[in-house]
Amino acid sequence: MVAVLNNKKMATKKPRVVFYVSEQTKSKLEKLAAHHKRSVSNFVEVLVEEAIEKAEEEGHLKDD
Amino acid sequence: MVAVLNNKKMATKKPRVVFYVSEQTKSKLEKLAAHHKRSVSNFVEVLVEEAIEKAEEEGHLKDD
Repeated sequence: MVAVLNNKKMATKKPRVVFYVSEQTKSKLEKLAAHHKRSVSNFVEVLVEEAIEKAEEEGHLKDD
Repeated sequence: MVAVLNNKKMATKKPRVVFYVSEQTKSKLEKLAAHHKRSVSNFVEVLVEEAIEKAEEEGHLKDD
């Protein structure tokens, strides 16, 4: 994704999130993302969005 | 976690995974992690591990 900010091209301006997993979990995550034909980053993004949707449905997370 | 490699203590040697989300999703993720009294990194780690467990139960991911 390429975003334009202040007339300069930037790789992306979406916030970055970092987490740490075991070698084994990372390896399985890569296989699982590949199984779903998605990048690891996109696969994790979808997991997070699904968790947010579920929490909102259950009323655990108030909207701003 | 403290790992020892080449006789030196390191903060962690767990692999890092990076992903990108919208500002809104990041904000909700932070609230949701806080709701569960976990760090964002730990919360995402658990989401990923749960997705792996589910995939393994459903036979979508072969063990090494």
